[in-house]
Amino acid sequence: MTFIAPYDDEKIIAGQGTVGLEFLEAVPDLEILVVPVGGGGLIAGVALAAKSLKPDIKIIGVESELYPTLYAKICRELPVKGGATIAEGIAVAEVGRIPLEVLRGRVDDVLLASESQIETAINMFLDIEKTVVEGASAASLSAVIAHRERFAGRRVGLIISGGNIDARLLASVIMRGLVRDGRMNRLRVEIQDTPGVLARVAGAVGDAGGNILEVYHQRLFSDVPVKLADLDLVVETRDSNQAEAVVSALIDAGFAPRRLSDQATGE
Amino acid sequence: MTFIAPYDDEKIIAGQGTVGLEFLEAVPDLEILVVPVGGGGLIAGVALAAKSLKPDIKIIGVESELYPTLYAKICRELPVKGGATIAEGIAVAEVGRIPLEVLRGRVDDVLLASESQIETAINMFLDIEKTVVEGASAASLSAVIAHRERFAGRRVGLIISGGNIDARLLASVIMRGLVRDGRMNRLRVEIQDTPGVLARVAGAVGDAGGNILEVYHQRLFSDVPVKLADLDLVVETRDSNQAEAVVSALIDAGFAPRRLSDQATGE
Repeated sequence: MTFIAPYDDEKIIAGQGTVGLEFLEAVPDLEILVVPVGGGGLIAGVALAAKSLKPDIKIIGVESELYPTLYAKICRELPVKGGATIAEGIAVAEVGRIPLEVLRGRVDDVLLASESQIETAINMFLDIEKTVVEGASAASLSAVIAHRERFAGRRVGLIISGGNIDARLLASVIMRGLVRDGRMNRLRVEIQDTPGVLARVAGAVGDAGGNILEVYHQRLFSDVPVKLADLDLVVETRDSNQAEAVVSALIDAGFAPRRLSDQATGE
Repeated sequence: MTFIAPYDDEKIIAGQGTVGLEFLEAVPDLEILVVPVGGGGLIAGVALAAKSLKPDIKIIGVESELYPTLYAKICRELPVKGGATIAEGIAVAEVGRIPLEVLRGRVDDVLLASESQIETAINMFLDIEKTVVEGASAASLSAVIAHRERFAGRRVGLIISGGNIDARLLASVIMRGLVRDGRMNRLRVEIQDTPGVLARVAGAVGDAGGNILEVYHQRLFSDVPVKLADLDLVVETRDSNQAEAVVSALIDAGFAPRRLSDQATGE
């Protein structure tokens, strides 16, 4: 069988370059093209094609900050951390040799996208564009958002390279987005472990408009006295203002709630 | 302020009819148009416009089986059950008066979509079309799938009326889809409550390729003897064949696993 390299191949690069031709056909006065970069085949083809037609168009590559391999060649030395990224499609240890040759002098800058920025961009595509994109595709949008002053008022094209995201991963990204947006909250309330207390807690949360999704009683491993217990709640709210209202309602009802930070809130 | 009825209004109906014009402009030899029906404005406009241009085009309405209100007028009497449906956009208690007048003689049939069919169709749009649609939109596709012999080999247009689905609901639909497809499984294993048993269970699951997502020990409320415990596992697998392989691996390891049925598997 014949092995065809997915990016280090002149014909693959030429084929991917047609994306640049299509962009300029659709929007001739495009000023910037933002392209996700893994092995570099797509951006090499696009840069070559687009700059042939329109030499002053800017080509900006976007890499995962865990795999800054074109960045290291074009901008400044930076080690490849590697590891699990949501942008699997661009998790490539080394930009290809042929793409790099093509890109020298043709790529104007390389931006790096963090995991949480990429997750946010996936959710924005779902929310606003109603489109399912994979992490590698969302990297372009996340870079534009992180550097909005460079793109404001310009005609910018983003290449969406695929929608191949695992269903469970997609569901997790959506739920983590709700946590980030303050729509899903974890609260811890120290309570007397006696009948009726949960009803008072639940009543205060409900009156403030919070929707209780999960309830845990922490007894064995809590550092509170034996007659007390930690009650952990997962509460859905409209937004973070309503989450604050839920906390206030619990305080008014005589409890001392704490908002638990969550890994998903990241940075 | 002026109240504008969302469907019982001639101008709204005329405006929505432009969807039919656009369809026939794009695909002049279209044979069937499938349209979600709530108050009936969209289908009335589309039927009027499309049949004016192409009298032999078939117009098929789709309603939630909980709200069969046009169905009751056109096909046969059927009570509106009402209640919570994932197709909120077409949960209308009574088809509009003006739409009904337009539709008599212009709608060829009305099909009913069940909740689980609509959920499946939402997941198909995500998986295959990479598009986020609300339940009302997915109803069209679910009706085509449920009656595929009527549509096979025909040129069929489906109207996707919106993508306004709550993020948490969307995440739930995705996860429930994984349960339906046998990619997410609940297993119950009766175990000796002694050190090392969980390792043997987890080893058997892992060797068969199952990914354990959650582990619960049921002690207090189990009907097993006190020295035993029920161990409930949520296991992710590639498909239902691999789920069977996980069950077999547990049996080979000397356990007696049961697959717990899940509400989400529905019908």
